[in-house]
Amino acid sequence: MAPQQTVGILGGGQLGRMLAHPAALMGIPLLILDSGAATPAKQVSLAPAPHAAHPDGAFTSPDHIRQLARAADVLTVEIEHVDADVLAQVERDGLCAVQPAPATIKLIQDKYLQKRHLQRHGIAVAPFDAVPDQPTAEDWSKLERQFGLPLMVKSRTNAYDGKGNSPLKSLTQEDITQTMQSLGKNKLYVEAWAPFVKEVAVMVVRNVNGDVKSYDAVETIHKDSILRVCFAPLRVSTTGGRGAGGLVDVNKRAKELAERAVATLDGAGIFGVEMFLMADGSLMINEIAPRPHNSGHHTIEACDTSQFENHLRAILSLPLGSTALRVPSAGMLNLIGTSDSMDPINKAVQAAYETPGATVHLYGKTECRKGRKMGHITITGSSDAQVRSRIRPILEAMNDLSAPFIDALTTPPPSATPSAGGYSHPYPLVGIIMGSDSDLPTLLPAARILDAFSIPYELTICSAHRTPARMVTYAKEAAGRGLRCIIAGAGGAAHLPGMVASETTLPVVGVPVKGSVLDGVDSLYSIVQMPRGIPVATVGIANATNAALLAIRIIGSASPETAADLAAYAVDLEKEVLDKVDKLEDLGWEEYAAKVLKK
Amino acid sequence: MAPQQTVGILGGGQLGRMLAHPAALMGIPLLILDSGAATPAKQVSLAPAPHAAHPDGAFTSPDHIRQLARAADVLTVEIEHVDADVLAQVERDGLCAVQPAPATIKLIQDKYLQKRHLQRHGIAVAPFDAVPDQPTAEDWSKLERQFGLPLMVKSRTNAYDGKGNSPLKSLTQEDITQTMQSLGKNKLYVEAWAPFVKEVAVMVVRNVNGDVKSYDAVETIHKDSILRVCFAPLRVSTTGGRGAGGLVDVNKRAKELAERAVATLDGAGIFGVEMFLMADGSLMINEIAPRPHNSGHHTIEACDTSQFENHLRAILSLPLGSTALRVPSAGMLNLIGTSDSMDPINKAVQAAYETPGATVHLYGKTECRKGRKMGHITITGSSDAQVRSRIRPILEAMNDLSAPFIDALTTPPPSATPSAGGYSHPYPLVGIIMGSDSDLPTLLPAARILDAFSIPYELTICSAHRTPARMVTYAKEAAGRGLRCIIAGAGGAAHLPGMVASETTLPVVGVPVKGSVLDGVDSLYSIVQMPRGIPVATVGIANATNAALLAIRIIGSASPETAADLAAYAVDLEKEVLDKVDKLEDLGWEEYAAKVLKK
Repeated sequence: MAPQQTVGILGGGQLGRMLAHPAALMGIPLLILDSGAATPAKQVSLAPAPHAAHPDGAFTSPDHIRQLARAADVLTVEIEHVDADVLAQVERDGLCAVQPAPATIKLIQDKYLQKRHLQRHGIAVAPFDAVPDQPTAEDWSKLERQFGLPLMVKSRTNAYDGKGNSPLKSLTQEDITQTMQSLGKNKLYVEAWAPFVKEVAVMVVRNVNGDVKSYDAVETIHKDSILRVCFAPLRVSTTGGRGAGGLVDVNKRAKELAERAVATLDGAGIFGVEMFLMADGSLMINEIAPRPHNSGHHTIEACDTSQFENHLRAILSLPLGSTALRVPSAGMLNLIGTSDSMDPINKAVQAAYETPGATVHLYGKTECRKGRKMGHITITGSSDAQVRSRIRPILEAMNDLSAPFIDALTTPPPSATPSAGGYSHPYPLVGIIMGSDSDLPTLLPAARILDAFSIPYELTICSAHRTPARMVTYAKEAAGRGLRCIIAGAGGAAHLPGMVASETTLPVVGVPVKGSVLDGVDSLYSIVQMPRGIPVATVGIANATNAALLAIRIIGSASPETAADLAAYAVDLEKEVLDKVDKLEDLGWEEYAAKVLKK
Repeated sequence: MAPQQTVGILGGGQLGRMLAHPAALMGIPLLILDSGAATPAKQVSLAPAPHAAHPDGAFTSPDHIRQLARAADVLTVEIEHVDADVLAQVERDGLCAVQPAPATIKLIQDKYLQKRHLQRHGIAVAPFDAVPDQPTAEDWSKLERQFGLPLMVKSRTNAYDGKGNSPLKSLTQEDITQTMQSLGKNKLYVEAWAPFVKEVAVMVVRNVNGDVKSYDAVETIHKDSILRVCFAPLRVSTTGGRGAGGLVDVNKRAKELAERAVATLDGAGIFGVEMFLMADGSLMINEIAPRPHNSGHHTIEACDTSQFENHLRAILSLPLGSTALRVPSAGMLNLIGTSDSMDPINKAVQAAYETPGATVHLYGKTECRKGRKMGHITITGSSDAQVRSRIRPILEAMNDLSAPFIDALTTPPPSATPSAGGYSHPYPLVGIIMGSDSDLPTLLPAARILDAFSIPYELTICSAHRTPARMVTYAKEAAGRGLRCIIAGAGGAAHLPGMVASETTLPVVGVPVKGSVLDGVDSLYSIVQMPRGIPVATVGIANATNAALLAIRIIGSASPETAADLAAYAVDLEKEVLDKVDKLEDLGWEEYAAKVLKK
């Protein structure tokens, strides 16, 4: 191999471990600075010759950092709580390059300065202010007038995974004392409570040459301020609601905001940008991590290039890898210790082994502790609904999260039996829409077919002429919400299918509904005779069964599982007819005809 | 972590290295027996406590094997050229379990015995016979009469990667001597030359409990008997030909044959089964490897569970992981030394860094040699055509394979310009078919639209009434050949779209062609009014433009890239009309109307 630059990593935990894998694949020599000979990262990375071993010492130790800098070509971090001043010195002394820039690491260490920096660059953040040292009652009152209660009081430094946050519910001396004590001696600041509808994260990577790429936004779900579950891609669902104009293109806007924020920071590498999505569709940045981030772990299995590989590419002036998802849908579940027992985690791992598309990532930590990240599990699948149904038994096996929490994450279909409402689902692949509830009897067979194939769908009313705004919103949001196909039924002038097709890139299947005159031919012509440029896939008059089967064929064209179900359906259809052949043979055609006519 | 069984691996090369990664993820302690402290596998796996290091010794050494057996719970192999007798002894002595069974390893080591074993179990293999020790001229004549020339003379043992094969072209003393010398002192056997159309491989995994799963068949492409490139899933293309009835369901039959062959062998683990696909569609087994295999390397990125993880699960009585592909299409390219210079490999790696969906796997070997496997590159993509276009620049960068070889593998579209034949492609996503060449003028706009979107397609004639057998074969093979959608144009009775839809699970788009009477309404009704159960997506009369756009929407429903192209197309359509609005405004409507009427 051509001589590669040696990368020195400050920190040998799980992020270092996950960096070590692509480093080995690309032949990049690593030196990992951490205390102990068998930290998570060191377990999977032999020190490269001529080094007998990885450096054994604290990643905060100036001497060890300097020694590492002499042996490496580039230093990077897997944790931001390092001595940024030493890193700056190392760079000034020309010992080696440091990525990302020490100034960036230093800025990010102080959440108050980080937020002020973003605000000065015109990046939206939740309102915040500093808390004076030894604040007086008057200081607190002023902050309360500014932000209301509860006041989110936070440590400016050394805060992570929920540590360093304390909501102040009232200004009684008791509450103030308790908050101050829980946050220790750190400098403090205050944030307004952000009434977000979702938490969102975007990983952004920039290489030494300044090339920038970002990954698709993901939904992050926290409990007690610790990331528990993550879903990719982000879905902003307004299903069942009456349309919400501001939620279109959240992914695109989140990526733009994240890239804009990272553009204000110096240095190469990957950045995790956490945001709040508000009810009006606006986005605010919560905080930025200058390193691989928990909200990007799914990229190992789910994306063309993982966040870890892209971090290494970025700091080594290699071309950035594609950030595209290579699977339709993915989820990530953290394995967090609930006590010193590994039992709940072992149970989750066992459940994962039984789950198709699940990959277990244990971090090789020998001791389990409450709140400690022991590993994670990635789940990939052909749809959001499938990923959610796959993650559910693993969450349940952990016996850590409450049932309502798990329900909210996975929201299973109520039941696949028609009587219980069918396979109607919050993460549908097919949308069945009609201009009026009078079309419902015609469209219902479509729902029944989707039930039979366990294809998640939604069914709603959306009139081209009476709710044109709702129709446009529905059509515009459909692809981003994960739909693969829309079935639209309409009668008479029958504009709905064609108008919806004009506002989406999804295939739209049109079902001509038969009216009181013209036998449905009017609807058929209105739906099928679209102008060049906007196609509608038209099925026979009132043939919603075929509309659903067409939607399933569309899904099946990219899903071998669904295609296999369709093949089985075709065999059933054939058998049904062949059984009649046998019966006709048995009875003789005269008797058979008599029976058929009697019906 | 709960105490895990320790796995001892005989051999610390690249297969051991690729086993070490999932072992770390699952928390499985490994002990790797090989000579040297930093073999490919040992570089990425610290010996677990209390062991200070992995055992340093030859994996053929009985003493070292026994020592390893005492320290491990299960022994396995990453190479079959081990001392199977010692392994059997270790098992008999109760030192530890060995997987797969030593008897299986021993059987497979002798290719002649392996073939005889398969033949006795009724598994199809190419005709073969033993060569007596010190064969006489009469022995050779007899073999020549039996098999014809050239005789494929092979070593029974120690043969791999093309070593141990020598074709005997004539029975002159000179040729015989040369062949005998090239094969050394090994025992020999002879095989009939198998005039295969493709080489195919299936990975089969069986766990200790006897559960069996197999991966989808892949196409393997060898040069000088060394695997160079591999494509998944297997495509058996008869495009441009006149239909070949025997080639349907090759994947299913290959999996069944591989599972049947592995069922005759004892022990748990993964098995690589190499086969020949003959012109008549029959399959014959070439050979079996009782370990992870080069033809399964793509499973790391492309499948739910890699062959390496499934091997570990199999020997440790864990549930087997899903073997399903999680991406639509994948390829694998071996990085094989051409000399002691790493230059060609470094160039391929550099090209891979520039290629979306490519993952580099270097094996950490310090010295490059001609014929040595230094690494591989996996490529994933949304279609076969995309994978082939992505692999091409990497193959070219290696500067090792000849241009015709690369062309044959990747067969790029001739050109995207209409004059040069469009984006017609041997690995199409869309098939445009018509009952007669008189329909060509109507269907041509579909091809032009697909050209404009760079969607690979094929265009051919297929008449429901005049070539019914061809139509059935075309429809039956379409999904297995990688098509996602069929556009069928027909006029009058217009049976083609509906009949094709009856023989495939793919979505079929029907284009009603206008005849000399009835204005195309006859065709429209014939195509759209399908019976319940078999849908055809019907577009407007003679509107092949919309048929192609619908096909692209179908592809785009599972491909964000294609969906983005569709969104851009919609913007262009809008702009085209808005430009006319501006022009009408500029000229005034009287003058505009005059211009329009003049045309």
